[in-house]
This record gives sequence, C-alpha cells and structure tokens, in this order.
Amino acid sequence: MNFASDNIAGAHPVILAAVSEANDGPAGAYGADRLSARLEDLIAERFGKRAAVFPVATGTAANSLALGTLTPPWGAILCHREAHIETDECGAPEFFTSGAKLVLGDGPNAKLSADRVEEMLTRNRRGVHSVTPKALSISQLSERGCAYRPEELSWLGAICQREGLAFHVDGARFANAAAFLKADLASLTWKAGVDALCLGATKNGALAAEAVLLFDDQKAEELAFRRKRAGHLICKQRFVAAQLVAYLESDLWLKLAGRANALAQRIGDAAARFLSNPVEGNQVFIRPGPEGIAALRAQGATFYDWGPPSDGEGRLVVRFDQPEEDVDQLCRLLERLG
Amino acid sequence: MNFASDNIAGAHPVILAAVSEANDGPAGAYGADRLSARLEDLIAERFGKRAAVFPVATGTAANSLALGTLTPPWGAILCHREAHIETDECGAPEFFTSGAKLVLGDGPNAKLSADRVEEMLTRNRRGVHSVTPKALSISQLSERGCAYRPEELSWLGAICQREGLAFHVDGARFANAAAFLKADLASLTWKAGVDALCLGATKNGALAAEAVLLFDDQKAEELAFRRKRAGHLICKQRFVAAQLVAYLESDLWLKLAGRANALAQRIGDAAARFLSNPVEGNQVFIRPGPEGIAALRAQGATFYDWGPPSDGEGRLVVRFDQPEEDVDQLCRLLERLG
Amino acid sequence: MNFASDNIAGAHPVILAAVSEANDGPAGAYGADRLSARLEDLIAERFGKRAAVFPVATGTAANSLALGTLTPPWGAILCHREAHIETDECGAPEFFTSGAKLVLGDGPNAKLSADRVEEMLTRNRRGVHSVTPKALSISQLSERGCAYRPEELSWLGAICQREGLAFHVDGARFANAAAFLKADLASLTWKAGVDALCLGATKNGALAAEAVLLFDDQKAEELAFRRKRAGHLICKQRFVAAQLVAYLESDLWLKLAGRANALAQRIGDAAARFLSNPVEGNQVFIRPGPEGIAALRAQGATFYDWGPPSDGEGRLVVRFDQPEEDVDQLCRLLERLG
Amino acid sequence: MNFASDNIAGAHPVILAAVSEANDGPAGAYGADRLSARLEDLIAERFGKRAAVFPVATGTAANSLALGTLTPPWGAILCHREAHIETDECGAPEFFTSGAKLVLGDGPNAKLSADRVEEMLTRNRRGVHSVTPKALSISQLSERGCAYRPEELSWLGAICQREGLAFHVDGARFANAAAFLKADLASLTWKAGVDALCLGATKNGALAAEAVLLFDDQKAEELAFRRKRAGHLICKQRFVAAQLVAYLESDLWLKLAGRANALAQRIGDAAARFLSNPVEGNQVFIRPGPEGIAALRAQGATFYDWGPPSDGEGRLVVRFDQPEEDVDQLCRLLERLG
Repeated sequence: MNFASDNIAGAHPVILAAVSEANDGPAGAYGADRLSARLEDLIAERFGKRAAVFPVATGTAANSLALGTLTPPWGAILCHREAHIETDECGAPEFFTSGAKLVLGDGPNAKLSADRVEEMLTRNRRGVHSVTPKALSISQLSERGCAYRPEELSWLGAICQREGLAFHVDGARFANAAAFLKADLASLTWKAGVDALCLGATKNGALAAEAVLLFDDQKAEELAFRRKRAGHLICKQRFVAAQLVAYLESDLWLKLAGRANALAQRIGDAAARFLSNPVEGNQVFIRPGPEGIAALRAQGATFYDWGPPSDGEGRLVVRFDQPEEDVDQLCRLLERLG
Repeated sequence: MNFASDNIAGAHPVILAAVSEANDGPAGAYGADRLSARLEDLIAERFGKRAAVFPVATGTAANSLALGTLTPPWGAILCHREAHIETDECGAPEFFTSGAKLVLGDGPNAKLSADRVEEMLTRNRRGVHSVTPKALSISQLSERGCAYRPEELSWLGAICQREGLAFHVDGARFANAAAFLKADLASLTWKAGVDALCLGATKNGALAAEAVLLFDDQKAEELAFRRKRAGHLICKQRFVAAQLVAYLESDLWLKLAGRANALAQRIGDAAARFLSNPVEGNQVFIRPGPEGIAALRAQGATFYDWGPPSDGEGRLVVRFDQPEEDVDQLCRLLERLG
Repeated sequence: MNFASDNIAGAHPVILAAVSEANDGPAGAYGADRLSARLEDLIAERFGKRAAVFPVATGTAANSLALGTLTPPWGAILCHREAHIETDECGAPEFFTSGAKLVLGDGPNAKLSADRVEEMLTRNRRGVHSVTPKALSISQLSERGCAYRPEELSWLGAICQREGLAFHVDGARFANAAAFLKADLASLTWKAGVDALCLGATKNGALAAEAVLLFDDQKAEELAFRRKRAGHLICKQRFVAAQLVAYLESDLWLKLAGRANALAQRIGDAAARFLSNPVEGNQVFIRPGPEGIAALRAQGATFYDWGPPSDGEGRLVVRFDQPEEDVDQLCRLLERLG
Repeated sequence: MNFASDNIAGAHPVILAAVSEANDGPAGAYGADRLSARLEDLIAERFGKRAAVFPVATGTAANSLALGTLTPPWGAILCHREAHIETDECGAPEFFTSGAKLVLGDGPNAKLSADRVEEMLTRNRRGVHSVTPKALSISQLSERGCAYRPEELSWLGAICQREGLAFHVDGARFANAAAFLKADLASLTWKAGVDALCLGATKNGALAAEAVLLFDDQKAEELAFRRKRAGHLICKQRFVAAQLVAYLESDLWLKLAGRANALAQRIGDAAARFLSNPVEGNQVFIRPGPEGIAALRAQGATFYDWGPPSDGEGRLVVRFDQPEEDVDQLCRLLERLG
C-alpha cells in the first residue's frame, strides 16, 4: 500500500505508445515538428483560446520559466507558505527570476483568499527599500489537495488586473482540479485572468512532460529565449509533445485524474474523523496523531508525514495507476483506527 | 538527402524498447531507482573510475550545470570561438554561472591547442578589474568534427592542473570521438585531468538523454543542488537512465557512432578537394564556394551553411540512422561537383 | 524633535576634515593608498587580529557582498524576520548570492537565540528539494536596538562551526553595541566565531563609509572580485578610508555612539511604561497605542511607526548629533503621556 | 611626471567645499534632499530635457545599472572590443543584467561605426539559439580618447530606433568629449537617440560621483529598484549630489576638462610622429615602439602600456590637476625621442 506520491508511478501505456509512434523518421528539431503543432491546436480547442505552449520535462522548469518571464528581479511573488515553489524547488524561482523574493501568506487548505492577497499587498509595498509585488502564484490543486473555484479565481484575477500583478497557476495536479470542478477550462484560466498555467502531466501518467501555457502572447518571445537559455528546449521535442497530445486527446487526462480522485474520496470517507482538509483531488490529509500515523505504518501503509512528525499528520496520495486493492485495504485500516 | 543535423533523427529502437521496459510499476523518484544505480555502475566500468553521474534531458543543461558548478561568477571560461557553449546555447553558461564570461580563442579545426591556452591565460589575468580564468571548456568532437588526441588532452589537463582551472568537456558527440580514437575512455577523460564530461546520447540515438560525469566528487553535492534548482532533476529519472543504460550496454553507442563515422569518411573521400577540415567523426565540412553549395542543394542535398553564405562553406552531418543510399547519392554529387 | 532615523544626520566635523586632508595630491587608486593601509592596521589593532578589509559606500553593499561571498546560490541564510537584509534591502542578498533564500525566524528583541537557530536548522534540511542552510546572519544591534552578549555570540558561533554555516554580522549600529557592551571587540567577533562583520560608520557620523571585515582571509580574493564586479570598488578609495580612519582613531566612534546611547537611555527611562524592548543602544521602541502615537506627533515629535499603524508602536532613533534639547523635550512629552 | 590615469587625482577644491557646505544639519535620506533636487534641475537646464537622474559612487555602477535596466538576460550588448564594460569591469554588466552577453566589434579609434553595428546585427540574430541584440553601448570619449561626432551619434541612434536596441553611452570622460566637440549636450544625447548617459565626474575632479541619466523615464522606476537592490542608493545622497551640482554649476566640468584636453593636445603635438590615434580629449596614445616606451620611462615618465608590452604602445592621461611642468617636461622628452 504505497501512497507516498504520484511521482513513483510509471507511465500510462497509451502515453508510452504515443512516444513509440512518434519515432517515425526524421523530424524538425526544437519544436518544428507535427506533434508540437498538434499540441498547440489541441490546447486551443480545450481552453477555447490559442496560447503560446512550451513543453518542458519537469514541473519545476515550467513554474520557474513562467515566473522568470512574469516577474522582474526586484519583484515579489505572493504565494502560500506551503507552495511547492517555496518548499520543494530548491530556490528555482529565485534562480530563474534572478533573485525575486517569495512573499508568503497563510490560509486554510493551502489556498490564498482574495482578502489575504489584499492584505499581503498592503504590507509589502514600501517603495524601493523592499521588493514590490509583481506576481501572484497559486497551486491548482493546492498543496493540500484543494481546488480553487472559478469565482475564487476570478476574484484573484481581478486583484491582479487592478494591481498590475501577473497571475501564475502551478498546475502540477491541474487535471485533478479540472476533474473535480467539472468547470470549463477557460473559466479556470484565462477568463479568470490567469496569465500562465503550468500544466502538469508527469504526475498523472506521462514519462516527463509538462507545458507552460501563456495566454497573453506578448511574453512568448521572452519565454522562448529563457527556455533555451535554461537548457529546457528539448531537441527532439516531438517525444514530449507526443506525451501531451496523448494525454489531452480523448480526455485521457481527465479519466486518469477522475479515477484517482474517486479513490481518494473513498479514502476520505473512511478517514472522515481525521481529515485535516476536504478531499477535492487525489490527496488525502489526515491527522490521526502520532500514534495513529504509527499504527497505519505498522500495518503496511507507506506515506509521508506532513509537517514535523510530532504533528501527527500524514499525506496519502493516490496515483493514477494505484491498484484498487490498495485503497480497499487502506480504507479498512482507517475505519478500524483509534 | 538530409544532412542538416543529427538532431532531426528519431530514437534507436533498442533505446525506445528500454524505455518501455522501464515502465514496470512504482519506482523511487528522483534517481532512487534501479536503473539510475545501474547507470552509475556501468559508467564506472566503462571509464575505469566511479564518477558522480547526473542524467539530464538536454546538452545545454549538461554543459551549463557542469560549468555553473566549476566556475565562479567572477571567473572566465576559456573556450574556442566556435564552441557550442558560445554560439548555440543562448547564454546558458552565463545564466548558470551567474554571469561568468566566455573568453574566446582561435585555432584550426575548432580546437584549442595548449599554446593557445597559455596565451589566453597570459592575456586574461589582470587582477580584479576583469574576470579571471577559472575553467577551460573544449568540445570532443570539436565543432568542426575533429578529435582531441589523448596526448593533446593531457597537455591541456596539465595546464589546468598547474593553473587552477577546471577542465570541462562538452561531449555532445563524445561517442563519435571515442569511436574514432579507439582509445580507452579513461585516457580521454579523468586520466588526462578532465573534471567534468558531458556525455551526449541524444544526437546518437536517444530520445532525450545526456549525463554530466563528475570525476572528482567534491563538487557532486553542489551539482545535485544546482540541478534541482534549475529544474533538471527529472522526477521519473528511470526513463532517462534507461536510455543511457541501453546506450552504453553492449556498446550500442560505439556501434552507432562508428557507423555514422564510416559513412562520413566516405563523404569525406568523395569531397576530398573541398574539405575544410579532416573528417574525424560524423561531420564533414566542405568549402566548394557559393556556387558549389548552390549546386549541391539544387540536386537535393539538405545541409546548413557554416559561417556567412558568402564563405561558401557547408556542414554535412551524418545521423546514426542515415540511410546508406543518402550517402551513396551525396558522394556521387560531390564527385561530379565543380 | 526629529527622531526618524540616524540616516538623516549630517557628517561629524572630524570626519569631514579627514576627507579634506586626504586630498593631498595624486595617490594610488582602488585602495593602493596610504589611508587604506592605515585602515587595515587600525582594524588589526582594535580587533586584535588582522582582517581583510573592504571599504564600501553603503550598508546594503557591505551586507550583500559578505553574504554573496559566504553563501552559495543554493543556500539558505538564516536570519530574524525583522532583519534589515530581509525587510529593507530590496532583495540585495538575493541579487548578490544569485538567488539564495532568506529563511526567517522569530525571537524577542529581534534577536535569534541559539535554540531558535537549532530549530531552524532542523526544519530546513530536506535534501536537494530545498535550499539548505549555509549562513547565519544577525544584526548587532538588532533591528529592535538590542545587543547580543558575548556568550550569546559564542553559542551561535559554535552552532555555525558545528554545522558548517558562515556567520555574518550586520553591524550598521555596531558602534552602539560596542559602546553598550563595553566588551573587547575580539569577543564580539572572531573569537565568537564571526566570519564577516559589516562595520557601519555612516549612521554614526560618516558621509558614506562602511567596511566588510573578513576574519578568515580564505575568501578575501573572492570578495575582492565580487566587490569590483558589483561596482563597489571605489576608485579614489582614500576618501572612504579617511572617514573610517578618523572614525576609529581616538575612539570617535565609541564616543559618538556612547552619547547617542546615553540620550536614548534617558528617553527609555521617560517612556518606561511603554517600552516594547529594553533600550541597549540609540533606539527606543515604544508602544503607547495609536492615540499615544498620535499625541506625540501632535506635539511635534517626528518618528516612524514600527509595524502597521494599528499596532500603535513607534521607533525613536537618537542621532549622533541629536541636540540635547530634543531629548529634554521628548522626555517631557513622554512623561506626561497617557 | 605621472600620466598613469585620471583616477590617481585628488578632488577639486570647489567640489570638496561643496561637500562641506552640504553638511548643514539633518536632511532627507535617499535623495529626498535639496541638493538632489537641485541636481535634477541643473541637468534639465544643461541637457534641455528633464531626465531621471541617479547619482552613484562609481562608473562601473552607473554603467551596469543602466545596462541592467536596458537589457534582458537573454540579450546581447553590442560594444567595441576595447570597451571599458568589456575589459575593466570584472563582468559587472553580466552581473547586473543577470547574464547578458557582450558581443564585440572592432573599429579604429575604439569607435563603432554605423556600418560595423549593422554588420554585428546581421551576424548575431539567430533565433533562440543565441542571445539576441538588445542594446548598443559606446564610450564617449572612446577608450582611445576619441569623440563621436553628433552626426555619428545620430546614425547609431537611428539604427537603435529601427532595430529596437537601447542606446547606452559610457560617459566616464563625457566632459572631455563635450569640451572637445563644443556641441550642445542635447545633440550628443537624447536628440541623437541616446537612452541612458552615464555621466562621470570622478575622473574629472569629484571624490566619487557619477550619475545615470535616463532620458526616457519609462524605465526610471525599474532603475530605482535596481539601484537600491545593488547597494548603490547612497543613504546621505546629498553628499554625492553636492559634488555633481558643484561640477555642473558654473561649467566647472567643462573648464577642467578643457584644460586637460589642451594639455593633451600639446603632448599630442610633441608626439605627432608616434600617435596611434587622434588626440580629442585628455588621453594621448603613442606607439614609439618598445625602446621608445622604455626610454620615456627611464627619463621619469609614468604611464601604462596599452596592449601587450611587445606592441610598444603607451597611454598618457592628463589629469584635471596635472601640473603644467609635467607636460612641459614630457613634451621635451617626446620631441627628443628616437
């Protein structure tokens, strides 16, 4: 019963097959290939707007390239204290922005509310003596597996618009959010004022494929140069584009995410007494206390602590390819716990 | 007859199969997998020394991570004027080193001789008023497809040792050099004083796989942090390691490179009158003049100019999967030319 | 009654005279002058150890050059949440370190205790996924005008030694700390394990003069290059060195700081009911509530809020050249307040 | 007879007096003072246009802040191979631009002609694979002491306008150029399309005072943040502004530069047989061969080689405060030479 992370999963067979099929003789390098073009069309269809699309191999690359393009070195990026860009990217945003600062806010479910963002703006505008807010970054799903609703996104987008902030969405688990919200993709992104979405596929079935979507193409040239300069322009890009095309075509991404979400809901129901957050995706956060955590592990469940061990909180992640028996077994454990 | 670049090639079937086989259920992320461990062992076997191995997706990433680890921001990197790091990486070395400077030297066959490096050192040590030499970077094969002999490498390595320079080798086409030289790999690298080799596989049959080899592991921790920070730590690293393992096992890399080299030799023989450089790998540089260039293209050969069009020089690259008929046909054209 | 900041002061006549006297014909540029040499000797005398001395024009430059030399881009700098390097330098530490991260801790009197630093270390070592602690930075005086005692410094220094952290002291008001503590300078710096002291003079009587002191000269060459590269190597350095020599000779610095400290103590006594911190230097923090703040201003006192206005806290800074009548008048106001 | 550099000079008494006079009690910090305001007015008068003015302490700071504001990290700065920003600033432009590249051109008198710039543009636009031209930087006087005429500046400005390049002028010796050309300052700057002038005063009589003038204020906010972030916002800025006001008022700058130029002309006349460049400012470049160089030194002249000693070229710089006897004596030596 391994619920450690969605990054220990393999790749989905359909995606792997698409990579093999892409190996059909010579093709233009650096994106000048049929599949890269198909990917742009497909994204335009799905999101209802043509975006500049930049396939890359990692989520850290996607986030950092987007933030580096949207934020000057003397800017501040407002984000949640638990944001992946703050805690798990080894300073990549600082590297790609040439030293911008992440300014941290709090909020339940690892989400930033509009009120909180307003307050962060008030506190962090002090003239040239400190970096000044230039971007807002949220994670959809949040780091605690919760989804921003379309209206929440619109409120945040309106602040960004009014205050001259760029609006960035870390969508490492965007598929899970989309599957949960069942909203149209436009209302989750550009219609709500999002400038850049980093659309993840790796955690949800790809080998190594993410894409930055820039909805305003004014910055597209800059991002193209920055991508090359960061070593993230993949020579044989067709093999990454192939993964993303297979992922989006036939809604494979939503099917895989929907399945994982549904399994997570079952776990959430079984752990209802211990939930530290609503279950809105493929992650379940429980706080059964240190003994509860130990008991689960003693019975064979693998997962990470969330926060210091003394908090007695754990994170259970359901992979796209998680066997149902794992979930059955875990639910039984949870129901019998404490 | 497309001789534009080795980067338009697809992937070798053996490598593609290895990627599929790597998809065998959950595995540790970020390199904590069986194939990544196997890769390190394999490199230790082949190079006769255990190195710190960092698989990444692009050659620009490999070069820049190595240079960023080996060179301080206030350092100069000595390299040839035609070096890929100078001309084709959009300032990636400057980005990853936080602004070190590339100091350019000249030399036939796009190689730097020991004498030239001594001269560059003399000219570029002027106290704090200018950046100071801290690294030497060469390409093996050079950008003109020529190979540094073991003794040339040793001379350069001795200078580096004496002068406190790091020694970096851009090995985007290291396989072609190794196949040409038939020397043992140790004498081409650490025994000659090389600190870091960027071992390319993408141009020679992989989908997207390169590796930085650090022969002195004192800097390994730093490179590990820098790789993550640059977004180049691949989550499901097994799929990259699988490519490199398949590439090195059974000497696939040398077979593919050897084949391309042999075909390039045939082209070189046919173009003997026009050669601007010896043919020592899979690239052939010819200077038949602007009319010659035009004539070849008119008859169906695709390739790039080298330098401004008025120079009348072109570069012909043989891919690992180049059909022999392409070569036959090109040789006929060349023999009949001018 | 202007108690806004020590940076609105002019220069002390003795320092100004020293600048004029330094104008005695041609002299070596970039530090190759008599006064720069005299400064190094003087610092060796006062601190009981020869240090590498780097005069610069601003405190932000001094701090950032020191931190940039002591911290790799992938490092974390541990500091207090209210540290000047975090709140008032517009991201200069991030710029000079090429993107290291400031990790913030709390503690009374804007000081970091050894226990707090231990806890910060525990929480912030998570492998390559996040920046890793590489430096500790404290302010002496702290941002709330409090002094680290020699034993507190030794405890911090021992942690740094054990854990491989560099130890940096922002000494913008080091003179006030030294005047308050009456300890020997060695025990406040290198004997306690401090690697770099940024010794301020500007706030305490100079025109524009600060110096980075590196007690371990292994990093001196690097700092010298970094200083030039940052535009902080002053061409006619004698005019900066002259200020620092005049400042340190005849203990002018301690006399000026001692006077300001004594006046601040008087204010502290008058404001005893409202003090939010002990008075250990030339700053007095009071929390008389929003009405108290307003009343003081209505009666002619000029000073800054500390924190959001709703906190009702203010900071009163005594300049080296503050007229005694200002203090008399302010004390009367404070005694009569609320 | 010391003709090594204008940076060994002291300060002019009028400028020193202005600094003393500026010490007249408390004043707003960070530029909120009377003299900083006066400086902006004075520059508006002299240049016929209100510019954003940023006083700093060094020329390297001025150049780098301007270039950092005008050039993205993925840009190329076109400049002459002998430019100070290339040879004498230890990579400061790379640091402040976060890694842009200096692309070097040649041309007599260390000047770049319009034709040469066109050629550099043609060669250096190769899509995302290399940095792309974003700025042109020239030195006025050039590094060989020669002046760009107003029409030459207009030609360069027109290219910049057409091609979307920023136009930067390193004016470390702008006073000498202005005194030589006797043109109005507008035609030497914004009317010719110059975006940023770095106006030097240190070499020509100040203690440490330079100013960046931005003629288009769209970038002024950015430069203000960058200046603080680089540690170049001087706390007691009035003491720098005082120097620049005294420098510009009553045309002191032109008088001092005019005097040095006139003395240099005398030297140029005496060295007419050996001149490697026309004398258009306060620098004289002579090429009497290695023996000539040695003979001059043997007879007491101090100066630097220009290029490697085997070239037998030297640079003689006349300081604003150079005694006339030095010049008399040097002229006699030169006339008798070889």
